[in-house]
Amino acid sequence: MNYFRCIKMDSRVFAGLLAEVRAKKPLVHHITNYVTVNDCANATICCGASPVMAHAIDEVADMVSMAGALVLNIGTLDPPQVESMLRAGAVANRLHIPIILDPVGAGATRLRTGSAERLLHDLEIAVIKGNAAEIAVLAGVEGNIRGVDSLGVNGEPRDIAAALARDLGITVAISGSTDIVTDGERTLLVDNGHPLMSRISGTGCMASSIVGAFSAVSEDRVAATTAALAVFGLAGEKASRRSQAPASFKVALLDELYGLTPDDVEKGARVSEV
Amino acid sequence: MNYFRCIKMDSRVFAGLLAEVRAKKPLVHHITNYVTVNDCANATICCGASPVMAHAIDEVADMVSMAGALVLNIGTLDPPQVESMLRAGAVANRLHIPIILDPVGAGATRLRTGSAERLLHDLEIAVIKGNAAEIAVLAGVEGNIRGVDSLGVNGEPRDIAAALARDLGITVAISGSTDIVTDGERTLLVDNGHPLMSRISGTGCMASSIVGAFSAVSEDRVAATTAALAVFGLAGEKASRRSQAPASFKVALLDELYGLTPDDVEKGARVSEV
Amino acid sequence: MNYFRCIKMDSRVFAGLLAEVRAKKPLVHHITNYVTVNDCANATICCGASPVMAHAIDEVADMVSMAGALVLNIGTLDPPQVESMLRAGAVANRLHIPIILDPVGAGATRLRTGSAERLLHDLEIAVIKGNAAEIAVLAGVEGNIRGVDSLGVNGEPRDIAAALARDLGITVAISGSTDIVTDGERTLLVDNGHPLMSRISGTGCMASSIVGAFSAVSEDRVAATTAALAVFGLAGEKASRRSQAPASFKVALLDELYGLTPDDVEKGARVSEV
Repeated sequence: MNYFRCIKMDSRVFAGLLAEVRAKKPLVHHITNYVTVNDCANATICCGASPVMAHAIDEVADMVSMAGALVLNIGTLDPPQVESMLRAGAVANRLHIPIILDPVGAGATRLRTGSAERLLHDLEIAVIKGNAAEIAVLAGVEGNIRGVDSLGVNGEPRDIAAALARDLGITVAISGSTDIVTDGERTLLVDNGHPLMSRISGTGCMASSIVGAFSAVSEDRVAATTAALAVFGLAGEKASRRSQAPASFKVALLDELYGLTPDDVEKGARVSEV
Repeated sequence: MNYFRCIKMDSRVFAGLLAEVRAKKPLVHHITNYVTVNDCANATICCGASPVMAHAIDEVADMVSMAGALVLNIGTLDPPQVESMLRAGAVANRLHIPIILDPVGAGATRLRTGSAERLLHDLEIAVIKGNAAEIAVLAGVEGNIRGVDSLGVNGEPRDIAAALARDLGITVAISGSTDIVTDGERTLLVDNGHPLMSRISGTGCMASSIVGAFSAVSEDRVAATTAALAVFGLAGEKASRRSQAPASFKVALLDELYGLTPDDVEKGARVSEV
Repeated sequence: MNYFRCIKMDSRVFAGLLAEVRAKKPLVHHITNYVTVNDCANATICCGASPVMAHAIDEVADMVSMAGALVLNIGTLDPPQVESMLRAGAVANRLHIPIILDPVGAGATRLRTGSAERLLHDLEIAVIKGNAAEIAVLAGVEGNIRGVDSLGVNGEPRDIAAALARDLGITVAISGSTDIVTDGERTLLVDNGHPLMSRISGTGCMASSIVGAFSAVSEDRVAATTAALAVFGLAGEKASRRSQAPASFKVALLDELYGLTPDDVEKGARVSEV
């Protein structure tokens, strides 16, 4: 595992991380929802990594032990699944395997909010990635969420994210038309992506899977998360040139993710530091 | 919420309902099967609404409270899921949120038949939509079902549907090459659709999701259900001009659903009253 | 049900089996994982059969009773699901309905290895189909598996498969760039397929579903399994002429499976006997 010391965070770093994911093909263990699980599996493959899904409490310890990253996504959680997340997460923490948490729908129900808080409290999470409302709710700020859709937050998302990152000592990402990635000190903005990405189910979940893949090859969480979101956004931009309707766009999105080269990333990533 | 009093049920009503779904983007809470759940999510988005899937008994009351409709689909039921359906349904009934029931496979196993009957008995269902055999079995008529496929019924489907509708005081829809929608007094036939829709998994489930979206914007259950089935059928017709093989047809179906305009519906809906 | 006595196993046999699946449309009951379940449903339809998924212990006996084959896939197993597999399998055995076992991830966790062994021990399995590492692990040979990916085995796969087949008295298939099918006496190699099939999630699972469909129409397990793998591989070859990227390739794969004719199989199957 490499340690990028991002004196200067530029597109070559992100390009290099994509090359590294492709070379190392890390195993990404998912405990995730059944709505978008197939998309997560294929997005993981298309970015160069290898997915495995396993949720039984009797096997998650075994499975995570061979993984490069653990992605916890509460999109269709229930209490036994949360227990399995805690079990897998404890093993991941002991083995220094990074955990990515996607708190889907936190704020919409007490079970989701409480479970996300418990995972954040009991485990050492490397990266939490959600929409603005989910992150706001977990930061103790008012967030307006309906189902799994963010309808707005009371405050400036990048400040909320940075405060939560400092508070928890982790990396926080907010996905949106501009993605925000912050560890509370550095805050990066990713301007890649396309509006059609919000017209299909699963882009948020797929993004978290890709963050998992990139986190498996770099201990610099901000760089890995930023690279993952830039790569996925770039694939979306290229896909939008092939299709302007959601289902064919999704096919093109995965195809373009698969075909994306480090050179594409070096040229196309639009990342700025706040 | 508008109340369409269908003195004259014409295509402008259905076109208007599509415009209303697009404008209001109702949240459609699904408790559904894991086979077609991704298709249901994307079909809900493509018709203009917003899907959320949540099944844990500890959160369904919270989740349904913010929804415009609740879709219960027993395609891969098990007893805890049925309990969650009953819990969510009781809250939906109290809040006057319409419930759509898709009794997938009723008649194939005692668990499915019994669970569908229990949901119909314990909850106030707004619309039940199934294939001919499923509806026949629940109407107490002989229906021949194999797995989740209707192989025929002993009687005239539209009479069976109307009798069940009158008996339960709800709206009943039978999907097929001609869809039937009835509240026992009015019976409408929808002649939109394409045979390829029966060559992919999930069209029945997607149709129920769309019925959910439309039921969220109109209290006239017959109009909402008819509009939903006409809209989906029209998307299928347009898709068939782009593809004649199932997987690419499915992509085209969702694309066309997304692109369908109220004007397309006004011109293309083929609905007749019996 | 026909019994092919394969004095001479040639492509006409495989072509005839495809025609028979299309004519009889057997019901294939799946107890399977939630990652690839939609692909399994559509692959089953596209090869000409009819899928049903049902896992509740209270209904699997009813459901399997009307099926032509039972496919058990442990890709996202948990203990209750294994119990349902055992219940369904016992009924299938009593009714002489063939069982196909896909031991996804056997070797990766003790739960997966142990569950696969228990299913093999307690049930009369017709065909077990896995990757080289999964089959090696179940044959008691060292197999290197990471998540659900085979990284190699200690020995010659076809010998390992044949030894396991003889040991258990069943048909064993190993999927790979060349598929191996053996009952311990006859060993057939299938050279159809395309490398892109390994770049999407679900091809292994889809192959098992198709083996289920073919096993429902022939008691010659080697012929049915070989035909299924040749048919699926041929669809992959044809799909590769339409697309060279994974997601559009998957769409093309299902389309081509749907359109494949017995004549295509007779001309295109590349099967050899060891």
